Amino acid sequence: MQDKKVKAGVIGATGYAGIELVRLLLRHPHAELAAVGSVSFEGKTLGDVYPSLYGICEMTCVSTQEVIRLSDVVFACVAHGMSEDFARQCMDAGRVFIDLGADFRLREEEDYTFWYGGTYQYKDLHEQAVYALPEINREAVKQSRLLANPGCYPTSAALALAPALKAGLVSPQGIVIDAKSGVTGAGKALSDTTHFPACNESFSPYKIAVHRHTPEIEQTLSDAAGQRVKIVFVPHLLPLNRGILTTAYSKTLPGADEEACRAAYEDFYRDEPFVRVKPRGEAASLKDVRESNFCDISLHFDERTDTLIIVSAIDNMVKGAAGQAVQNMNIVFGLPEDAGLGMIPPAF
Amino acid sequence: MQDKKVKAGVIGATGYAGIELVRLLLRHPHAELAAVGSVSFEGKTLGDVYPSLYGICEMTCVSTQEVIRLSDVVFACVAHGMSEDFARQCMDAGRVFIDLGADFRLREEEDYTFWYGGTYQYKDLHEQAVYALPEINREAVKQSRLLANPGCYPTSAALALAPALKAGLVSPQGIVIDAKSGVTGAGKALSDTTHFPACNESFSPYKIAVHRHTPEIEQTLSDAAGQRVKIVFVPHLLPLNRGILTTAYSKTLPGADEEACRAAYEDFYRDEPFVRVKPRGEAASLKDVRESNFCDISLHFDERTDTLIIVSAIDNMVKGAAGQAVQNMNIVFGLPEDAGLGMIPPAF
Amino acid sequence: MQDKKVKAGVIGATGYAGIELVRLLLRHPHAELAAVGSVSFEGKTLGDVYPSLYGICEMTCVSTQEVIRLSDVVFACVAHGMSEDFARQCMDAGRVFIDLGADFRLREEEDYTFWYGGTYQYKDLHEQAVYALPEINREAVKQSRLLANPGCYPTSAALALAPALKAGLVSPQGIVIDAKSGVTGAGKALSDTTHFPACNESFSPYKIAVHRHTPEIEQTLSDAAGQRVKIVFVPHLLPLNRGILTTAYSKTLPGADEEACRAAYEDFYRDEPFVRVKPRGEAASLKDVRESNFCDISLHFDERTDTLIIVSAIDNMVKGAAGQAVQNMNIVFGLPEDAGLGMIPPAF
Amino acid sequence: MQDKKVKAGVIGATGYAGIELVRLLLRHPHAELAAVGSVSFEGKTLGDVYPSLYGICEMTCVSTQEVIRLSDVVFACVAHGMSEDFARQCMDAGRVFIDLGADFRLREEEDYTFWYGGTYQYKDLHEQAVYALPEINREAVKQSRLLANPGCYPTSAALALAPALKAGLVSPQGIVIDAKSGVTGAGKALSDTTHFPACNESFSPYKIAVHRHTPEIEQTLSDAAGQRVKIVFVPHLLPLNRGILTTAYSKTLPGADEEACRAAYEDFYRDEPFVRVKPRGEAASLKDVRESNFCDISLHFDERTDTLIIVSAIDNMVKGAAGQAVQNMNIVFGLPEDAGLGMIPPAF
Repeated sequence: MQDKKVKAGVIGATGYAGIELVRLLLRHPHAELAAVGSVSFEGKTLGDVYPSLYGICEMTCVSTQEVIRLSDVVFACVAHGMSEDFARQCMDAGRVFIDLGADFRLREEEDYTFWYGGTYQYKDLHEQAVYALPEINREAVKQSRLLANPGCYPTSAALALAPALKAGLVSPQGIVIDAKSGVTGAGKALSDTTHFPACNESFSPYKIAVHRHTPEIEQTLSDAAGQRVKIVFVPHLLPLNRGILTTAYSKTLPGADEEACRAAYEDFYRDEPFVRVKPRGEAASLKDVRESNFCDISLHFDERTDTLIIVSAIDNMVKGAAGQAVQNMNIVFGLPEDAGLGMIPPAF
Repeated sequence: MQDKKVKAGVIGATGYAGIELVRLLLRHPHAELAAVGSVSFEGKTLGDVYPSLYGICEMTCVSTQEVIRLSDVVFACVAHGMSEDFARQCMDAGRVFIDLGADFRLREEEDYTFWYGGTYQYKDLHEQAVYALPEINREAVKQSRLLANPGCYPTSAALALAPALKAGLVSPQGIVIDAKSGVTGAGKALSDTTHFPACNESFSPYKIAVHRHTPEIEQTLSDAAGQRVKIVFVPHLLPLNRGILTTAYSKTLPGADEEACRAAYEDFYRDEPFVRVKPRGEAASLKDVRESNFCDISLHFDERTDTLIIVSAIDNMVKGAAGQAVQNMNIVFGLPEDAGLGMIPPAF
Repeated sequence: MQDKKVKAGVIGATGYAGIELVRLLLRHPHAELAAVGSVSFEGKTLGDVYPSLYGICEMTCVSTQEVIRLSDVVFACVAHGMSEDFARQCMDAGRVFIDLGADFRLREEEDYTFWYGGTYQYKDLHEQAVYALPEINREAVKQSRLLANPGCYPTSAALALAPALKAGLVSPQGIVIDAKSGVTGAGKALSDTTHFPACNESFSPYKIAVHRHTPEIEQTLSDAAGQRVKIVFVPHLLPLNRGILTTAYSKTLPGADEEACRAAYEDFYRDEPFVRVKPRGEAASLKDVRESNFCDISLHFDERTDTLIIVSAIDNMVKGAAGQAVQNMNIVFGLPEDAGLGMIPPAF
Repeated sequence: MQDKKVKAGVIGATGYAGIELVRLLLRHPHAELAAVGSVSFEGKTLGDVYPSLYGICEMTCVSTQEVIRLSDVVFACVAHGMSEDFARQCMDAGRVFIDLGADFRLREEEDYTFWYGGTYQYKDLHEQAVYALPEINREAVKQSRLLANPGCYPTSAALALAPALKAGLVSPQGIVIDAKSGVTGAGKALSDTTHFPACNESFSPYKIAVHRHTPEIEQTLSDAAGQRVKIVFVPHLLPLNRGILTTAYSKTLPGADEEACRAAYEDFYRDEPFVRVKPRGEAASLKDVRESNFCDISLHFDERTDTLIIVSAIDNMVKGAAGQAVQNMNIVFGLPEDAGLGMIPPAF
């Protein structure tokens, strides 16, 4: 562990992921918030934008360059397509760069082009970038200075399915991932679908089978299965602020009984500080992980149909974004992995 | 159509399905609310229990016998296991009986015994009972005097999947039904899971792969497919009052392209007053059906995985309970099928 | 009553008040929706804007002129400052004009100038305009062809306080009106304060003591009291869709005991179809009036402090906007006052 | 500051205030959770009752006696009438006792008898008990071993009004306190009014002018004013989990202009770690204090009516219960007053 605090800077600090990161960093025992950047609010204080921070953090938003200059680690919370340049600058300046966007998540450029449009500008950066899902990829994260923080849906889906695929207990074919996210997942930008009277007391799917997180999920699951995995992925919008609950359906392979499945998950997550495999008979719930970095996973074995149903629950803004980014920073800087992440989910 | 109004009685009028039925019947142009029964609130007025009815309907709750005596049609909104006796009395007294509970929904007694426990007391009644999902079974409903009003989840699931199965466009194997219901589905009885601070801002599945509506769904889908269909069915609890949204996943069979699928649904529901097949590119949403008797259905064809995703949305208390019961009453009594069911979903 | 249906047109039909009005008019027994206008969505159908109307009303939005041409009565649901011209055109064309905005609510131009800015363009129109709160002003409404439909807060506040002031039971001094509104009150336009994650699980006052509905409330209460009444008025934003609950505090005058107060309200509202004075011991609640045209009022006498506390509850989009507008149309056209307004508040 | 951690025990740990206290104590740097008691769940673990704590705290609920035996400080989160005996035992055993209930809040036994029923059993305890609102009474808290933690409404109301009354800026007559609380204020016990479908999308006042927190508020405000203060107090139930927002109305006395009022509050709260007086033009909001120990206060001067409107916002379960109890423990044990209370309100 370092003697002095890690200087952390946040680009895009006034977006939802950014401000949650600010909140975590302000209470981190081994890091200090060195600078915050915002294009929309440059020159304003965080308290101007979020009155909840009044009197707590009145730091003024500065330019991206200033954030990079002042920080040991730079977190980027910006729209896809913007991070490559920031990464270039950070690498050149010797900073650690943790991207909360999509620019470095997909190994294959053609996947990126197909799902996001655009091409990879700096191929060397993509070669050194690591997909930073610690439970899957911790050793690589430790060695990296350019980290692609996973998407919220992919975090929940990968943690739900990777153990069973890796253990060869379920078929890589025919996996269905039905996911439900709180409204913060849509971010701070106003839209007709996130206007209160429109989404309150409502519920619906969106981007059915065409959501951009699909290739990211498939990439991780293919790695786990050791073969190409294609999934059906349908996200839905929940009328609540935080959380993603994923219900994943997979066909069990012969010999995969309930005990084998449970054992595979308990093994896989035995020493993980942030994954809780729920006891038999209990179901993962958003309530139990809210505002924490936990991912709760419950396993349900349907003998009638030879289906393993896996339910995972995370807070989309914590384990699905800012918390996982802090977890990755901790790993890279040799800090205790749970430093600054001791939040206990409130009971209500 | 009859000259005078149908006298309608409601047993279990103070439960959620019961009181919604009361509300619909009070504004029905060809029916009148003849009597309301309640074991818990006998002797009290409906306004005592639901202040929203103050000054609108101050009818006093009477005994079951009194309801049967005063009514042409008796709706039973009671726990399973209680309806058989009421049905017996109604048949003997020449009343039409519409059961909103589960007692007459399953054709096979062994299914009932397996999923609900208990046995069938009056086998003759079960022989004459009709599973009253009008879009599937309208002709039988017309001839019947003992109607099993479908469950809420089964209504949404059956309407979503029956057309594709019937047309042989999707495989009867491997169907996944991921359903999400509002809290009124759990009824008026208090419970830890429906206490406001517990379910507000939360979301979770329950009775995973063991929900009692499973055999009812399978019965209807098996009929449609012409072969035994087994499904994986997982219900979830949404933090909102009303509605069930079902996301159903089925493997398309060779030759089943998007146009064929869409045509099958448009054919199936062409003349239906309460089913709306959404235009291509739009998704069914709870918002659009709330407090109405509509079932909205949207079709999504995933070529990547040969999957037909069908989304259906209903108001669980209307098309999923009281509204469908009124629709059935209208059919039995030769009234316009949409009489008293002209509710337009509010925009917010 | 007329032989044929009243032709009703709605300007601003795609806003929240407008679309609620459309919904009510589509089920009105003695009116027909003749035309809908929208500047933002001209050429689009209502179903394009509100998918809930898909298959129910696919009317296309036309110009204001076209709405006026096709209608017997024109409802204007537009921002303040826009209605004067529409009113001019309607009067010239012999139409009835019902303005749901603020342009014709204030008798004194100087009040309008102070609170809204701008001046009165057509003074003759303001002279013939009637403040159309039927419970206070029914006879004038009957004779009028230019109606100022009251604001949502003023409806709830005036109905709460007018009887006590008129009867001389409470002091016109020191009245406090603490009001709470659902988010639909802020309309369809997007804003930071109505973004779901911002107002969900939150609550706060706004425009404290400077809300534009203040002079409108004072105008009505001054009329009732027979002297100038000044109030403190603080609105708050509730995290729910519909409803305004107003808690009004007034000092009782000597001799005004509980019975006298209750008698005054029961007298005042004895024959009113839409005002329900709650029995002693019960409190008005938003739940009990939602989606109906009712105004529930409860009276609470605090002997410790000589205060009469009056609670009123309305649906802000119905009795506070579209429902009251229909009620006014009914009065003007000699229709039954409750025609098309028989909605029973749902129990949940 | 002590060398070793304070051993803290919680009686009634499975209620809402209790479990929030557990959550705070588990992360307190200078305290350790020594024991948890529960009558309803004795022998069960906290994780059995609140799955959110699974893997975090699996402490088993023990008897009250055991809690007292193992603790330096005992927090009681029990119904009124139960704490006197526990206080007796704690005093006899040399423990510090912090009561989150009402038993020791009212100085005058006759007030307690009038509002709660029952009498004071141990008068000596009531003599040594201190009303532990730190911002008002910090010095007394420091010396005390028997602390009455204030009620949630009284905390919000007293902090809102005490500075103005103490400074003689507003009249002690005619104060109106209109307060709105989230549903956790009603606790964990099930009730018809806290059943999700009943309070979701609803809002209403309750216990109008007869709520038991009235005398507690009056006691504190009378102390501040130096004379008997009587208030009108109306609480309302908000459809959200956490928070109390209080809107207080008071008549300004001659000479009390806006600057004088603002200066009085800024003086009063200058060094307070948990009270934030908002800048001119901003209003306190529940969003900005949620899950923190802050009390935000905003001042609004209405010249039209000579009224000072004060808005205060707290999290009812933190500053209104568990957080304030920890703050009091910190004071009594000479710990930094904000130890374990550094929670930053989430932005969403």
